[in-house]
Amino acid sequence: MDLPDPGDTNGVAKDDAKAERKKLVKELAEQQELLYADRRHAVLMILQGMDASGKDGTVRHVLSGVNPQGVHVRSFKEPTPIEHAEDFLWRVHEAAPPKGYIGVFNRSHYEDVLVVRVHDLVPERVWRPRFRAINDFERMLTESGVVILKFFLHISKEEQVKRFERRIEDPRRHWKFSTADLRERDYWDAYQKAYADVLHECSTEWAPWHIVPADHKWYRNLVVARHMVKAMKDLDLHYPSLPAE
Amino acid sequence: MDLPDPGDTNGVAKDDAKAERKKLVKELAEQQELLYADRRHAVLMILQGMDASGKDGTVRHVLSGVNPQGVHVRSFKEPTPIEHAEDFLWRVHEAAPPKGYIGVFNRSHYEDVLVVRVHDLVPERVWRPRFRAINDFERMLTESGVVILKFFLHISKEEQVKRFERRIEDPRRHWKFSTADLRERDYWDAYQKAYADVLHECSTEWAPWHIVPADHKWYRNLVVARHMVKAMKDLDLHYPSLPAE
Repeated sequence: MDLPDPGDTNGVAKDDAKAERKKLVKELAEQQELLYADRRHAVLMILQGMDASGKDGTVRHVLSGVNPQGVHVRSFKEPTPIEHAEDFLWRVHEAAPPKGYIGVFNRSHYEDVLVVRVHDLVPERVWRPRFRAINDFERMLTESGVVILKFFLHISKEEQVKRFERRIEDPRRHWKFSTADLRERDYWDAYQKAYADVLHECSTEWAPWHIVPADHKWYRNLVVARHMVKAMKDLDLHYPSLPAE
Repeated sequence: MDLPDPGDTNGVAKDDAKAERKKLVKELAEQQELLYADRRHAVLMILQGMDASGKDGTVRHVLSGVNPQGVHVRSFKEPTPIEHAEDFLWRVHEAAPPKGYIGVFNRSHYEDVLVVRVHDLVPERVWRPRFRAINDFERMLTESGVVILKFFLHISKEEQVKRFERRIEDPRRHWKFSTADLRERDYWDAYQKAYADVLHECSTEWAPWHIVPADHKWYRNLVVARHMVKAMKDLDLHYPSLPAE
């Protein structure tokens, strides 16, 4: 799969992108109200990407403005011992958004074919069958009315180091920095290979991956917001009509 | 699929069956300790059958004697509004046994292709794809180390009515009786058809159905206990050895 240039902006100017994104967030807020009233669907946004690729920033810029009561954000960290004793889909399934809600997975079950693979936490005979298990799981969710939007935030190695430097220099960003992130950087190529397989193996008709050029935050936010609004409008959501009596 | 006679006892005498079952329960208790120490597998017993087919009795007679700390029993009733807003596998996945444990589903996700179908709660285009979703889900669990044993407790219509009568006559059994059970009896043939499809569509190599002749409780208990002990012994469970230091 050919990846786009991480610095791509498709000819859009920064100011235009910000203005359009703001308009889209308003539409998203309206669509979320309809989603709740309509109660036939849920929307699940899955965010994956290298460290500093902008997962937190995407949630903040695309979903601030939407009624937080209708949005469930869940970040998946290293599994707890309890989670570890269950199958890899257990904790993500538990967090699946009920009908009427937008769910966000900040990292997800894909870590179980990414970090787990790169660091050899389980052998290939364990992680390889997970591609199919993930596709099966996502199909079942789709059949149940969940619209899945998967975003790979695609940044360059150069942009990542710039962002790490900003985290070190800017006291307001210190909390985001961890020396573990620098160690992970040594595995850049292995992660790229693992991501390439994810994009290839798990781009299904029911839950395709969207590859988002993410070196420019304003363009990344615009692309994600556009996909979200389009997917929700495609649902043709309605306020239910009053019963006859 | 040809079903066995619900009254079948395969030439086993009642007293012999009870003695063997008691021996098997002891073995099961030992195997459960090993399962916990070994921590590589979980065992999931799924019980399905018509009303009064003996699901509660099977749990009582096959698992009493096993350390209850190592056994998680979950009964699935009519979905709550929260469960109803999720996909049909959500609540069962949440209850999946962690490694080291025996899980029991008293009714299960199969109700979503049984009662739901018989009473037309959702259209066929919704319940039909669930057969595949169930097989996919069970395969994923299996790949994660969960051994799944599915038991269809197969009783005759005549035995069912006898058991209902006993529930009406015996004050100690009153609590088990519901007039709804009698109404459900009108749907006997529709349930048999739905069960036949379940047994056909969801008997996979990773999670086959065991059809248990269940008119004789002592034979039913024996068959289930035998399957459980055999499946656990096949895992060749071991106490982990001490690390070198």
